[in-house]
Amino acid sequence: MRFSRVFTLLSLLMSQASFAESQWRTPQSENLVYLQLESGTVIIELAPFMAPKHVSQFKALIAEGFYDGLDFYRVIDGFVAQAGDVSEQKPSINKALLNPEFSRPTPATSDFMLVQSPDFIAPQTGYIQGFAAGRDPQAKQEWLLHCPGAVAFARDVDANSATTEFYIVIGQATRHLDRNMTTLGRVIYGMPTVQALNRAHINNTSGVIEDASKRSKILWAKLAKDVSPKEQLNIQVQQQDSDQVKQRLSSAKTLNNAFFHFKGNGNLDLCYYQLKSRLVE
Amino acid sequence: MRFSRVFTLLSLLMSQASFAESQWRTPQSENLVYLQLESGTVIIELAPFMAPKHVSQFKALIAEGFYDGLDFYRVIDGFVAQAGDVSEQKPSINKALLNPEFSRPTPATSDFMLVQSPDFIAPQTGYIQGFAAGRDPQAKQEWLLHCPGAVAFARDVDANSATTEFYIVIGQATRHLDRNMTTLGRVIYGMPTVQALNRAHINNTSGVIEDASKRSKILWAKLAKDVSPKEQLNIQVQQQDSDQVKQRLSSAKTLNNAFFHFKGNGNLDLCYYQLKSRLVE
Repeated sequence: MRFSRVFTLLSLLMSQASFAESQWRTPQSENLVYLQLESGTVIIELAPFMAPKHVSQFKALIAEGFYDGLDFYRVIDGFVAQAGDVSEQKPSINKALLNPEFSRPTPATSDFMLVQSPDFIAPQTGYIQGFAAGRDPQAKQEWLLHCPGAVAFARDVDANSATTEFYIVIGQATRHLDRNMTTLGRVIYGMPTVQALNRAHINNTSGVIEDASKRSKILWAKLAKDVSPKEQLNIQVQQQDSDQVKQRLSSAKTLNNAFFHFKGNGNLDLCYYQLKSRLVE
Repeated sequence: MRFSRVFTLLSLLMSQASFAESQWRTPQSENLVYLQLESGTVIIELAPFMAPKHVSQFKALIAEGFYDGLDFYRVIDGFVAQAGDVSEQKPSINKALLNPEFSRPTPATSDFMLVQSPDFIAPQTGYIQGFAAGRDPQAKQEWLLHCPGAVAFARDVDANSATTEFYIVIGQATRHLDRNMTTLGRVIYGMPTVQALNRAHINNTSGVIEDASKRSKILWAKLAKDVSPKEQLNIQVQQQDSDQVKQRLSSAKTLNNAFFHFKGNGNLDLCYYQLKSRLVE
């Protein structure tokens, strides 16, 4: 069993660190969405600080049961899994056209935690409230990164055309979508379930699965408060400024471990260093 | 059905381009490995130009049936799926300790096709013989990138400790492993099958699935020449210097499409722009 000793050591360090409860946070219940798929449960943490109107509409749609029985109709391996009402005909009082929330002006007291500057796509990358984020100090803008697990609203060519459909990034970070799409959350539990979603055929470049019977279904989507106690999961996410996160980032920059013979150049791809989750059972 | 018009246009362009057969290449049969998993077929293209000794040993192990019935015993979502003989006790005449082939000296006439310089981790990134690659012109070295789908040999802390176990990158590119591990190929068919492999529990930071019954099995691994004609797939990969690839890269650098309101900074993450495959049926 090779290529694991070094990681076992890291794991020990991490599990010791985890004794300190301050290393982990429990997301606010009102920011959690449960997606029940046929193959498992997915939990999304919403980011109202970045996309308040999209979050509000998403929550209203979920509360009315809009997504129940809909499916992931456009799934391209290495790119995104897109879900919702492919017909765009399903009625709802909550499907207003949304103005874009691609980024936000940097607040006077931003809790952005800088990790990498410059990043190869953004002037700066780091974390905001536990989410992988970008920042442009010149433009005084902040946004969420399209890392694996990012949840964003789909739209048409017009920036203000998003209404109900959403996608989850399942491949290498689709960073060209940063500041072009409204990212409103990220998957904090169940990415293996998302990764197991049925894909479009390899030759189908549009990615739309035409045969509806081959699409993975959303049995239901609920706000955490509407999920029965026995279906609730006690999921926690690393604190962005915890010792274990700082130690991981520091080790990642120097690769100061005998396992690594080439020590890198000190740069980090933040999408690889997203904050981890754990279940408390 | 939003967030698809622009991609449908691109798809049309790509399918028109695909009429020109020169846009695609059929990998050499002797460089193809089939993995038959319970859930589907995976095809790996080997890169003997980069890791001749590892490729040679991997092929010998496959030919003797070494991997048949073994499993993916260490699977960490967002990182790697590692397979082989977790006991390290399975006998074989082909399990010699391998000297590292982390990189190669740039040949006098390298077919490296430059795409991005500098990359955030490597001085240069591009393609070599259809594989995502890095290059350091100062050190005169070239290597394969740890992009999603990359196949590499596992090892212990010693650089020359690889023997039989291998892993497939399933998450955001693990670029800190570039020049630290011997990458000997990449998955060109079946990544959705790889992404559906059973993962370790979210709290299991070592990633080793202790309960063997929960590991996804390799039914068999074969060299293409030993695969029965009815199980053979006619898989093709984009030519790295084809018009469709050049057009995709050019569009990616400028985002010159009405869909993109923010036009980026011209940089590309090559791991997102790996060469695509198609099935010819």
